[in-house]
Amino acid sequence: MDKILLAHGDGGLLTHRLIEEIFVREFGSDILGEMGDAAGIECGKKIAFATDSFVVSPIFFPGGDIGKLACAGTVNDLSVYGSKPRFLSVSFILEEGTPMEDLIKVARSLGETARFAGVKIAAGDTKVVEKGKGDKIYINTAGVGEMLDNFSQAHKIKTGDAIIVSGNIGDHGAAIISRRAGIDFESVIKSDCAPLNHIIVPLWEAYEGIRLMRDPTRGGVATTLKEIAMQASKDFLIYEELLPFDPQVRSAAEVLGLDPLYLANEGKFIAVVDAAIAGEVVNFIRRFPEGENAAVIGEVLEGRGDVKVKTPLGGTKLLDMLTGEQLPRIC
Amino acid sequence: MDKILLAHGDGGLLTHRLIEEIFVREFGSDILGEMGDAAGIECGKKIAFATDSFVVSPIFFPGGDIGKLACAGTVNDLSVYGSKPRFLSVSFILEEGTPMEDLIKVARSLGETARFAGVKIAAGDTKVVEKGKGDKIYINTAGVGEMLDNFSQAHKIKTGDAIIVSGNIGDHGAAIISRRAGIDFESVIKSDCAPLNHIIVPLWEAYEGIRLMRDPTRGGVATTLKEIAMQASKDFLIYEELLPFDPQVRSAAEVLGLDPLYLANEGKFIAVVDAAIAGEVVNFIRRFPEGENAAVIGEVLEGRGDVKVKTPLGGTKLLDMLTGEQLPRIC
Repeated sequence: MDKILLAHGDGGLLTHRLIEEIFVREFGSDILGEMGDAAGIECGKKIAFATDSFVVSPIFFPGGDIGKLACAGTVNDLSVYGSKPRFLSVSFILEEGTPMEDLIKVARSLGETARFAGVKIAAGDTKVVEKGKGDKIYINTAGVGEMLDNFSQAHKIKTGDAIIVSGNIGDHGAAIISRRAGIDFESVIKSDCAPLNHIIVPLWEAYEGIRLMRDPTRGGVATTLKEIAMQASKDFLIYEELLPFDPQVRSAAEVLGLDPLYLANEGKFIAVVDAAIAGEVVNFIRRFPEGENAAVIGEVLEGRGDVKVKTPLGGTKLLDMLTGEQLPRIC
Repeated sequence: MDKILLAHGDGGLLTHRLIEEIFVREFGSDILGEMGDAAGIECGKKIAFATDSFVVSPIFFPGGDIGKLACAGTVNDLSVYGSKPRFLSVSFILEEGTPMEDLIKVARSLGETARFAGVKIAAGDTKVVEKGKGDKIYINTAGVGEMLDNFSQAHKIKTGDAIIVSGNIGDHGAAIISRRAGIDFESVIKSDCAPLNHIIVPLWEAYEGIRLMRDPTRGGVATTLKEIAMQASKDFLIYEELLPFDPQVRSAAEVLGLDPLYLANEGKFIAVVDAAIAGEVVNFIRRFPEGENAAVIGEVLEGRGDVKVKTPLGGTKLLDMLTGEQLPRIC
């Protein structure tokens, strides 16, 4: 069978075949038991729980695909929250007629990413909708992690703390939008889509002075900073010249009339840390290929939740949350 | 704003408003913290983890809606597995242009069902897809439960065990299909859609002789029995005259040319139990309105996974899994 049929979603023989012949194989050794409706899992006493649905279009893009993204997204949500990701559930909503080959590629990529991240796939589900009631492949992942002793708490943020970003800003958004627009820049812009628990979990464990981490996905770095500042009831001062960008992403954003601070990232995190350890934390992150452009980008001031960007010429602008659609179906 | 816009899914201001003005309000007191990307939750040491996506069409149907269904489905998966449902994640994939009123009704219904079932909504997500790339509202729920000492294990099933169904068979499937076909029977057929943890969890706790429970959703009682028989490597003998049906559901199935044993149930469970306690278990279930038609329907024989139905005239037919689509988007 080379196309998804409605019957692949009926819970009967074809659904079973899909699970046995594709999901069990492609998710590989990181699948738990029989991938049934529920799974019993051993976990630390306090657990973290996260969910995300992924509807990115196109499902394959430079640097990744919806399978890799669906795994990385939830792994990163759990990690920045302050937990060690352990288990994922994976649920597909497939459009009738989607090439089986696409589903296999996506499942393979999700399985590989889960193995890299060290998370087990514990439960799953598959639904099929009629042609024209979906768009190829939508995936929901939910995840369970073991809470760490240190974890994200906005109220721990203090005036004088440093704000760090783990690398270049806006790569995922720029990759998707230039792929969609069919625009070719000097070279293809790649999404940063990647699980980061191998960097984030050791950071939580090594540095008590980490107050909070967050992954700046939809809405970008700007929206995420605004959310954190409001939760912490502090102002953030960001220095524009410290923001790390791939020059190609910056030109792509310019051509497309977009602000890269509002472009989604899928393999980056923001950390607010005690200024005393900021240098050490940046050096730690830079040791990983995913973090080679990590940088301190600003500091925490007294205030009530404003995010101010200082331009090299000395001006200051306020950043707000994303309003209106910059880019639908970015993740 | 009375319609879903693409911008409701951009992670920015409108997404925040949707969460604050609809989800927090409608999910009510059973929402945990800020409904962010992840939640830290206290749970027993061994936990159960389940997921399900819901794409039922229509989203409102006699006896329920996609919100109630999305809560009940995962609560029941966790319960029959042998856990006490504690936390849910809720993730929406909304079609651009869906009336906001529909989303509010669905969120309200999900919130009410969660309160009834005693589960907290711990994490959430919202994505919006363009008109024609979805169908109003799709919902994924994942759930976490505390594992009970006694839980579903197919290998515990013994020859001589009794097979119980908790009530009338096929109500959900019949409700959806007659609603879709626009067929009116004597009275409207209602879905049985309901969370059953208040019946199932006490059963696990009261009777060590319960071997396994399962909810016969997609694929119906027939597919579920076949799955269990194969996992247990036993034959099941079902007595046709013992099967409880609402007479209306039976006539609807006949008119529509469907076998009610393959129609989905969303508020029923199958239990395989020590024959010695079968009577007691049935009486226990019958005390609840959702279980007033509970009955022993058959017994476990030596064998290799066949499900045989004995007709009142003495004939025997084999039940297999559902093959081919009986009914897409039933749940």
